[in-house]
Amino acid sequence: MHGLIGKIRSAPGKREELLDILLQATGSLPGCLNYIVARDPADTTAIWVTEVWVDAASHKASLSLPEVQEAIARAKPLIVGFDFQIETEPAGGFGLPKS
Amino acid sequence: MHGLIGKIRSAPGKREELLDILLQATGSLPGCLNYIVARDPADTTAIWVTEVWVDAASHKASLSLPEVQEAIARAKPLIVGFDFQIETEPAGGFGLPKS
Repeated sequence: MHGLIGKIRSAPGKREELLDILLQATGSLPGCLNYIVARDPADTTAIWVTEVWVDAASHKASLSLPEVQEAIARAKPLIVGFDFQIETEPAGGFGLPKS
Repeated sequence: MHGLIGKIRSAPGKREELLDILLQATGSLPGCLNYIVARDPADTTAIWVTEVWVDAASHKASLSLPEVQEAIARAKPLIVGFDFQIETEPAGGFGLPKS
């Protein structure tokens, strides 16, 4: 499995709008096992996204899907930058689809 | 919802043993919606844990459960420290139980 943990910095006052776009963009994307979007309670413009994909290729392929491209285009003007971004290798846990 | 993102530093050579304990400890704990344990591919003694709970109280209560207490006791000697620990407020996403 391929995991991502990222902290997105939204433009001031734009966090809720960006959250909505990220929440709409998630769903049954091929190879996506987990995609959770969270507010940072201590940092009013920050959003944390934690993702689990079947593999790195399925994550990469998702970025070319028309619905994801469309979401990226809408999200881009609301994003100032990425404070933190790390790749992980999920080993398992609770909340992943049964294989 | 209440979220946690943490980076655990395992003792040298003990990451796999610690991973096994963390994976065994997860399951149908009351209020736990998501609990994913991952290796850090760039850091051979690091483990990332991302959690989503119904609320902070259910997470706190879980720490008193006998099976969790037992896992903590087994894990403790394998842990050097916590490099990173943050609370989040998950807003939604893919992979959470349908409410």
